[in-house]
Amino acid sequence: MELWFNEFQTDNLSLGARVKETLYMGKSEFQDIAVLDTFEFGRMLALDGVFQTSIFDEFIYHEMIAHVPLLVHPAPRQVLIIGGGDGGAAREVLRHAAVERLEMVEIDGAVVDVCRRYLPEISTVLITGHDKFHLKIGDGINHMAQAENKYDVIIVDCSDPIGPGEGLFARRFYEDCFKALKADGLFVQQTESPFYHQPLLKRLYKDIGAIFPITRTYLAQIPLYPGGTHCFTIGSKRYDPLAVDTAKLPDLATRYWNKEIQKSSFALPNFVKELFK
Amino acid sequence: MELWFNEFQTDNLSLGARVKETLYMGKSEFQDIAVLDTFEFGRMLALDGVFQTSIFDEFIYHEMIAHVPLLVHPAPRQVLIIGGGDGGAAREVLRHAAVERLEMVEIDGAVVDVCRRYLPEISTVLITGHDKFHLKIGDGINHMAQAENKYDVIIVDCSDPIGPGEGLFARRFYEDCFKALKADGLFVQQTESPFYHQPLLKRLYKDIGAIFPITRTYLAQIPLYPGGTHCFTIGSKRYDPLAVDTAKLPDLATRYWNKEIQKSSFALPNFVKELFK
Repeated sequence: MELWFNEFQTDNLSLGARVKETLYMGKSEFQDIAVLDTFEFGRMLALDGVFQTSIFDEFIYHEMIAHVPLLVHPAPRQVLIIGGGDGGAAREVLRHAAVERLEMVEIDGAVVDVCRRYLPEISTVLITGHDKFHLKIGDGINHMAQAENKYDVIIVDCSDPIGPGEGLFARRFYEDCFKALKADGLFVQQTESPFYHQPLLKRLYKDIGAIFPITRTYLAQIPLYPGGTHCFTIGSKRYDPLAVDTAKLPDLATRYWNKEIQKSSFALPNFVKELFK
Repeated sequence: MELWFNEFQTDNLSLGARVKETLYMGKSEFQDIAVLDTFEFGRMLALDGVFQTSIFDEFIYHEMIAHVPLLVHPAPRQVLIIGGGDGGAAREVLRHAAVERLEMVEIDGAVVDVCRRYLPEISTVLITGHDKFHLKIGDGINHMAQAENKYDVIIVDCSDPIGPGEGLFARRFYEDCFKALKADGLFVQQTESPFYHQPLLKRLYKDIGAIFPITRTYLAQIPLYPGGTHCFTIGSKRYDPLAVDTAKLPDLATRYWNKEIQKSSFALPNFVKELFK
């Protein structure tokens, strides 16, 4: 007997993973949570039926959402992660010696607990703790609304813009990000697929561009996500991601990111550039 | 009622497309041929149950397999396509004014006929013909074995290394490619997924590297193919793809390729670099 989990990436497109074992299925205050062990992706987390991360390819998403923005800022001392309940982004952020304090605000404590138990390779920091790391279970939107001139880098590591993630794609939230950042701060957000979420991408690029002087989208190749290519968008008050002197960057012991990728990931195919015109 | 076609990209991974209509299903001397009209990809060609190309994303594959190598060579006059039965690579090659003669050797005439009928946007050149274009229905391996010092650029636009495509991934074939190329010629081949075909990619990179002085792999993001990222590998006698002065390249009216992509597509993530060590 073969057990398959099919994610409907759109109404007309599905990605199916053959399942070895269902490790966890539960329901939190906010969403359905499942951890499956699959043949192709290893253990993986799904929220409301949508694949979030897997042992097979989590390094790509987490390296790219953390290292790219942190290396655009010359001194990322105060860092905030909104979401990021699996702990992967925090793990990567804490590899940067410049970081003095990392706050993380995740809305769903159940996700943190489940990841601690079933995805320990990803949630290392959630398990062991770290003297620079401060976790708060709470609403990222409220947290952002109250913060002012506080962070160098904000990382919005959220789920899709439905359910608990919805408000994190609103213009009001980007205005609060701007306010929460210092005078030379920047933020990054995962911004979905360039193939399947074009209206969303177009809209948020415009919204962020209306608030931040510099807006840049970069891409990473992530097999777990729809179409296999994922967007990240940076809103920056001062530093332009395209102006980074990559030769001066540190070498990191990474599996996806490197100095050439820091630059090449901002090279957008014409059909993506068209969205931003 | 919903009709879905599921491609098994590996034994443990499937991509499903919801089907509007089955336009063609047949069997040639070499393989099963199907054309499906789908909601997400539009009309698409499948050979032996494997997705080959779709109206939605064919521009990416065809632009990247044609423009990247043709722009590495300073004067690509004599060009050969092995495979390429849908006509998309030929369409892109013929946009280069430098090309004086384009030969194409496709083993399966039935694929050409089916594409002419159901994928006319891709097979334009197969339908209208072109004074520079010469199509031969025949065995690309035999053709290559007989050619000597003849081509500037060879494009191996083949299916997976099972069935009719198998011999096109053999070391003997790469030796024949070398012989068929002029003293400064180069060839390119589609070389599958960096996530799901690592042993193959590792082996052929080594084989090509043992024959050609310069071997380079580049990547393109193609949602239809396993993992959404696809490799292309160049074997070159003289010109290094990394040494191209992209500022001097022509502007082409493309939907994916541009001058930055010509360069950035050769920036490989660390896990891909590792395969080639």
